[in-house]
This record gives sequence, C-alpha cells and structure tokens, in this order.
Amino acid sequence: MGSVDRVEGNERYARLRLSRLTEPGDKAVGALVARQGAVRLLARIEGDDASLPHVANYRARIKCDPDADVEQLSRSGGRYVIPGDSEWPTQLDDLADAAPLGLFIRGTSLRQAALRSVAIVGARAATEYGNLVASDMAHDLGLREWVVISGGAVGIDAASHRGALAAGAPTVAVLACGVDVWYPRANTSLFERIVAEGGCIVSELPPMTHPTKPRFLQRNRVIAAVSRGTVVVEAAYRSGALSTATYCRSLGRTLMAVPGPVTSAMSTGSHRLLRDDDPARLVTCADEVIEEVGAIGELAPLPFTPATIRDGLDPIALRVLEAVAVDRAMTARQVAEDAGLALGIVSGALLRLSAAGLIAMEREPGGGEGYRLLWGEADRAQQASAGATGDH
Amino acid sequence: MGSVDRVEGNERYARLRLSRLTEPGDKAVGALVARQGAVRLLARIEGDDASLPHVANYRARIKCDPDADVEQLSRSGGRYVIPGDSEWPTQLDDLADAAPLGLFIRGTSLRQAALRSVAIVGARAATEYGNLVASDMAHDLGLREWVVISGGAVGIDAASHRGALAAGAPTVAVLACGVDVWYPRANTSLFERIVAEGGCIVSELPPMTHPTKPRFLQRNRVIAAVSRGTVVVEAAYRSGALSTATYCRSLGRTLMAVPGPVTSAMSTGSHRLLRDDDPARLVTCADEVIEEVGAIGELAPLPFTPATIRDGLDPIALRVLEAVAVDRAMTARQVAEDAGLALGIVSGALLRLSAAGLIAMEREPGGGEGYRLLWGEADRAQQASAGATGDH
Repeated sequence: MGSVDRVEGNERYARLRLSRLTEPGDKAVGALVARQGAVRLLARIEGDDASLPHVANYRARIKCDPDADVEQLSRSGGRYVIPGDSEWPTQLDDLADAAPLGLFIRGTSLRQAALRSVAIVGARAATEYGNLVASDMAHDLGLREWVVISGGAVGIDAASHRGALAAGAPTVAVLACGVDVWYPRANTSLFERIVAEGGCIVSELPPMTHPTKPRFLQRNRVIAAVSRGTVVVEAAYRSGALSTATYCRSLGRTLMAVPGPVTSAMSTGSHRLLRDDDPARLVTCADEVIEEVGAIGELAPLPFTPATIRDGLDPIALRVLEAVAVDRAMTARQVAEDAGLALGIVSGALLRLSAAGLIAMEREPGGGEGYRLLWGEADRAQQASAGATGDH
Repeated sequence: MGSVDRVEGNERYARLRLSRLTEPGDKAVGALVARQGAVRLLARIEGDDASLPHVANYRARIKCDPDADVEQLSRSGGRYVIPGDSEWPTQLDDLADAAPLGLFIRGTSLRQAALRSVAIVGARAATEYGNLVASDMAHDLGLREWVVISGGAVGIDAASHRGALAAGAPTVAVLACGVDVWYPRANTSLFERIVAEGGCIVSELPPMTHPTKPRFLQRNRVIAAVSRGTVVVEAAYRSGALSTATYCRSLGRTLMAVPGPVTSAMSTGSHRLLRDDDPARLVTCADEVIEEVGAIGELAPLPFTPATIRDGLDPIALRVLEAVAVDRAMTARQVAEDAGLALGIVSGALLRLSAAGLIAMEREPGGGEGYRLLWGEADRAQQASAGATGDH
C-alpha cells in the first residue's frame, strides 16, 4: 500500500492520475469509475475519447508529469491509499459517487484514527470564546481517547488541533491542498506537530496542488464523512463551516453545535443550525459530545448538584421555614399562625433553623424578637459547591 | 367587579377569605371549590368541620380580620378579580384545580394585557449579558405590541420589565406577595412605573401578605399559564426559573430558551432546557419569539444576507475564479490549464475579476505576472453589509 507503480492497468496509478486530472467530489467521474473502473476511464481521457462528456476539461492538465507526483509523494513521506486498501476508511464509501478516488496521507493510519473520531469545525475569524471552547472540547475529547478531526485552517480548526495535541492525543487535519503544501503557512509548525505526535495530514488532492474555494468546500465532505459526527463551534450566518454541517446531516452523521452569546455575530451560524427544522444537537462540553456519538451507555455525567441544607430538614422544620418571610422579621407567634403549628413546636424549629444558618434572629425596634429568612445564607450554601443559585 | 361585599353567600367574599386561609396552588382546596363552591368550603372551615381534611391548617389564620383585607385592597387602588368576571384571563382555567381562587390586580386589565403576551423569566443573579438580552428582547417585543410578563424580581425579571417600559409598552408583574407589599424593595419605583404606564401588578395573595419560597414557586405557575409562552433567558443549573419552564411545558405553552456562552454558569439552566428530550425552542431575538408564539404567518425575518460580488459573476468568470489559488500567484497560462479554458478567454476574465477586487495581480520575482485570490477582499465585501465571513 502507498507506493505507486506507473504501469498500464494499475488501479492505484490510474486513480492517482485521475486525481490530478479531475476535481474532488465530481460525481460524474465517480460514477464512471464505479461502472468502468479507474483504468478504463484514464485510458478514455488519455485517448481523447470524444464520447466522454467534458473530456476536454479533464485533459486541461494532461501534460502534468505523472512521475513528478509519484516522486514528490515519496519525498514528502506520504502514501496514497485507495479503496480496498486495509487503511481505507470504509465510512467514506457513504459518499457513493462523490467518494474520493484515493487519499494522500502523511502520518498515522487514518482508518485507525477515525475509528473513534469526531470533527470540530468553525470560523476562521473565530472569537476568543470560540477558540477557548474548541480547544477545551478537543482537549477533553483527547483525554477520553477520542480523535479530533478538523480542516487545519486558522481559527476554530487550529484551536481544535492544538487542544487535542495538548492532551497528548492524535489529531487529523484534512487539507484542501496537497499534503506537502501545508496551507495556511501560519500553521506549518502545527502540521508538523500533528504528523510527529501520532496524527496524520490527509488530502484527496495530489502533491503540490494549491487550495481553491471549491476544494475547501469539497474537503468538508471528507471531514463530515470520515468522522462519527461534526461539532460546529462558531460560524457566521453564511459560513463555509455550515457546508460541513450539511454534508454531516445528509450522510446521517450526528450534527452538533455549540451555542454562544446571541449578541455575537460569530455564533449566528451555530444558532441557525440549532433552530433548523432538523436541528443540530446542542452540546456544551466533550462529555455531551461523547454522549451523542459514543457507544450506547457513554452518558454525560450530570453536573454535580449536592444535597442542600434544606434537603436534610425534617418535615416540621421545613414547614416552619416555608412560613418565614424573606422581606421582614416575624415573631414566633406569627410564624406559628402562618405555618398552622403550635407555638412550642415552632419555637424549637426556629432555633434549629437559626443554628443551621437558614434564618436570622433579629431584635425588633419595639424590643421584641423576630425571625427572618436569610436568602443569602441559603444561596451561598448552595453556590459554594454547586454553582447553583436560589432563583425562584 | 373588584369591590368585595362582606356578606354571607357572596362568592367573591368567600374566595377572598379562602385566599387568606389557604396557600396558592393547593389542589385539594381547588377541587373542593370546584365541587362544593367557595361559599360552602368557607362555611365548613369557619365551622371547624372535622370531616374536612387539614381543617386545622386552614384555621391557622382564621383570626385575620376580613375587613382589613377589603379596606387595604381598596386603599391601595386594587381590585379582586375572580373566575366569571369579564377581566378574568380564562387561560388560567388550564390550571384546573390549581387555578388561583382569584387575582388581586393593580393597574390595567390583565385579561386585555395577556391577550398577546409572552413571559420572560430568569436568574436573579443575572450577568450583564443576560440583563442586556432580556431587556433588548422585551423592548423589541413591546415595539411589536407584545406584552411582557415577568415576576418583578431583581435580575432578568426587572431587566425584562424595564425593556418593555423603554419601548412605551405595558408590562405585567406577577408577585409572590400582596400587591401592596412590592417585594423586593429595590424594585419599588419599577412597580410604580408598571402601574402608571399602562401595565399591572398581579398576585393571588391577599394584601399585606409576605413572600415565601413556596409562594415564589406557585407564582411561577401563574406566569406560565397566563402567557402564550415562556422565554428563559438565564438560569443556573438548579434555578427556580426552571419551575416556570416545567409549568409552561405541562400546560402546553411554548417553551423557549436563550443560549449563552457555555463557559457561563448562568446559562447552564437554559442549555439544559435546550438539551432536554422535549427541548425548549432556541430563540435569539424578539422576532424569533414572535415566530414561536404569534399567529401563523408571523415569521421572523431572515438575517439580511445581500448578494455578494460572486453572485453577479458569469459562469466563465466563476470558473476562472475557482481555479485561482489562494496561497500563491499563478500565471494566466497556469489558470487556463487548471480551469480547462482557452488562454484568451481566461485573460479577459482575469482582468474583470481583478477590476472587481476579487483577485490581485502580482509581479513575480522572475519578472512575470501572476494572479492570486484575495480572500481578504472577498471576505470584506461580504462582511461590510452582512456580517458574514468567507469561512470554508
């Protein structure tokens, strides 16, 4: 697997050559390869078969030197993987006629890495919030042995790859250019780390191919197809990340989106996905992502909500507590009247509640004694460990 | 309607008296009133009828002076509205045995105000973000002639009332204490404005009644029942605002929630509602709220997304543009090869694309000419008017 012999009738060579002559995701090409085989299609193009639709288009790059592709690929340490190879991720077959002809890979086995994988994608012009959330989520997915797949772009993509690497986890970048081109330049050292630290760089485009807008969009279908689900972290209302979401949905993968401030333009795309007729699943952390894409039984733990002081009260004390006002001091007699309990019982309960810090005893201006509910105390006791509040 | 005559056999008087002797939302009381009538139930309590369950509890406050309630009510400018009155909001009947015995109201007609109304509720310990969103949403609902109903608490409640008032729109506060108590004190001037500026203050608790925790929770069922739907703006994971959400759902009203940063503890309750098995609808602005609760056809306008420069390109120019690389300059001949078009056609298209600001012409180090796609230019052209980005 990987090394390409330039011989007539060689399927691997024919696919590599076709990947140079055609554009990614061309369904007409995919259908012809499925029906006639890559070797036959290449022969028809090389023979300028006039009965082949668009043959002139395919021949536009016919003069490119096939040897250069093979040489450049092996020089960059990459390999070419095609359907039928043991490293081929068979989930890509879900793309049917739009499946890649083959994949150029540098680094670890994509098939292995994609087994437990989830894609995190989003805006290049991400906010600090988006970068933080993507990075944290990728990190925590990495800790739980999930592989994060993204597109290697600046913004959310880079934050996701970096988060995974920070957890010591492999991560996969699917590029819209040759695996030796490494666009954008700013991410060069990131790409090097991805290959060096157990992940891989993947592309369906041959070596030295430059990125174009349509190639970015077609790259997104590979990201959606190879992963179990896609998380959109930040996306403007008209964002390319939404094309990944569309592929994800149409392929029957799990589509997820992270919400953000409704005041942020960079979250309008995520909120759009969450409001769709077939809405994305809202996720806020790695555990919730795993609950969506993981095996059955991998449920996200509920936020820690400890028992409150109230939970430990006996029924009498609870009834007395509920009769104490929050806005003024009441005498024990007034509380007894409201609670419908004998004064002696209420007085004892008031002392216990006071000791528990739930109510306060106050001197009244007239010299009498009164009790008042301490919202603050009750709230603080809960907030200290749970982050909960006593909103009502 | 409103004035209460203290006479035996008077339904209005009996309900007012029962509202003093019983607690809000007591289904046993509601069932007895439905079966025997308020007058008969009051007589059984006053006669200490031992066959009546919990009669001792109901008699705990029997010594309260009924005249004081009537006097205090009329002194505060309020009225007492009961089922059958033309001002009674009949949607409260959906609460069945838990329906209020009657409502104390100061200000405008609740029934009228609640016709086109939506509740906005949330945390007392709201963040700046939550207060801003609640206030803006209430303001915009007010401008579109929707009445905002809330609980008069600090935080999200107060922000919602204030937003509505800022739009010159009436707003309704449902309190967990007497309509003359005005808890919390900090909102006193807000309550005065609500009554003065066309809205109303509502409670099922008789005058001078103080708030307790159970009364806050029962107040929430009235908010949920009287409005067409409830929007939760910010809520901690264990927030009282979620009780309003639960009532809203069980009453078949529309439950909505505003997302926020996943890094904010005050949005965990909202996100919980959005992740539920029967999820709340995600809303980000007043238009989306109206789309959910309004009459059919009141659809939220889609965000303004103008045509981009690309939309205006002819097919040839588009094909040429898509062949131009984003990461390096290409000669016209290279572009022609990639696009599969004649050099003459491509050269003309490159000039048009350059004039449109989509690509840049660059001098190559060797002295030749090259063209490069201007991501930035294309992006800025979109962002300037749409807030969209060219993410891929």
